[in-house]
Amino acid sequence: MKTKNIKLTIAYDGTNFNGWQKTPCLRTIEGELEAALLRLLGTKTVLQAASRTDKQVHAKGQVVNFMLEKELPLHQIERALNAILPKEIRILTAEEKDKTFHPTLDATGKEYHYIICNDSFLLPHRRTYCWHYPYCKLDIKAMQSAAKHFIGKKDFSSFTSKKVKDGCRELSKLEITDEAPFIKIVIVGNKFLYKMVRILAGTLTMIGAHKMKEEALLSLFQKPDRRLAGPTAPAKGLFLMKVFYT
Amino acid sequence: MKTKNIKLTIAYDGTNFNGWQKTPCLRTIEGELEAALLRLLGTKTVLQAASRTDKQVHAKGQVVNFMLEKELPLHQIERALNAILPKEIRILTAEEKDKTFHPTLDATGKEYHYIICNDSFLLPHRRTYCWHYPYCKLDIKAMQSAAKHFIGKKDFSSFTSKKVKDGCRELSKLEITDEAPFIKIVIVGNKFLYKMVRILAGTLTMIGAHKMKEEALLSLFQKPDRRLAGPTAPAKGLFLMKVFYT
Repeated sequence: MKTKNIKLTIAYDGTNFNGWQKTPCLRTIEGELEAALLRLLGTKTVLQAASRTDKQVHAKGQVVNFMLEKELPLHQIERALNAILPKEIRILTAEEKDKTFHPTLDATGKEYHYIICNDSFLLPHRRTYCWHYPYCKLDIKAMQSAAKHFIGKKDFSSFTSKKVKDGCRELSKLEITDEAPFIKIVIVGNKFLYKMVRILAGTLTMIGAHKMKEEALLSLFQKPDRRLAGPTAPAKGLFLMKVFYT
Repeated sequence: MKTKNIKLTIAYDGTNFNGWQKTPCLRTIEGELEAALLRLLGTKTVLQAASRTDKQVHAKGQVVNFMLEKELPLHQIERALNAILPKEIRILTAEEKDKTFHPTLDATGKEYHYIICNDSFLLPHRRTYCWHYPYCKLDIKAMQSAAKHFIGKKDFSSFTSKKVKDGCRELSKLEITDEAPFIKIVIVGNKFLYKMVRILAGTLTMIGAHKMKEEALLSLFQKPDRRLAGPTAPAKGLFLMKVFYT
């Protein structure tokens, strides 16, 4: 029997999970998915994910793969896993890929959304899906103007919480849209540093709050210093939307 | 000191509550609000609500009142209650009203929204805020055409789960919009029978699924029979949006 390389595209509400990565005694997406596959296939399955999302981060298009050693049609995998998994995790599609397909190494880019609620109160239904920023009215035009500095190949070392040898990354899109009372930040890039999207969101928010100047960004790229960038925006506002492959 | 009649407009995510009404040993919206007022004012407060929403029903504009016997500015009530209450319940506004104001008796109408997810899978982030109906593609045009029969003053006895002496109610609006993969039903009426909105939503869905004919509605109004109407749609798709006062 032929081993098949299965690519799953999945969505999850990260609220009640300790992030993607399996950790003893904690509820994680990987842990739930592994348990569901064990129940379905009867054997332990190794999963690889395009992004190891943090605690409370959401996904609408995470990509995962595993090797299937059993004869099982794709639509049955999808249906059976959705029947076993908690409703917080959904398999959107299951596809067969080349033996060599790897969700992380083959990814050419990723799209993230970051949602801010810029209102005095936060609707209960959105409380775990955005960052509540009620302190002042954010200047969206200033945020949009600042966004252009992030586009292209740059050293993003100021925008990560981990020391890196090479902080060079490339963003192809950084769009900020007014969906009052929400502000949506769309970020597309080739690769991302640890916590980079959340620090970018925090920095843009500081610019919107006039607590940081657009010009300050320039020196952040020239002379990297994490302390001079904005705060790390809360995880619950972050969504992994899409992983791109050629 | 003058007693003040305070009107609160509130929003809540009904998912983890046993409905509005206070019930011993169960977590309810009224129970949480009473407890918060007790903590704020130091005395037991009697609450009255425009609608006693069921378990898992949500609200974005529920109206509640209570008598305030303490000198306390309105904005402080709002702020203090929001600080005490769980994030699932938010005070949107606090206003002072006439001594005679009563949220239920003075209401001239209510607006409800009912949300259906008509897709094979349900996004995890919406799982507790809609009715998942993946069984067939609903015919929205048929639902829209059927909707007109509900408008006006009618005997709605077929659309309630309780026996009533007088089932006469008046709907002024019943709009169905395609927000693919969601279907939104907007219902405005003067008063509503027990579970009426959910049974209307269930009936319209059966028409959209071609399991019930538009003509069947006519006999439901002429010769009321609960058994011939559609099922009661799940509570989690229902939102109390607005209560109207003259």
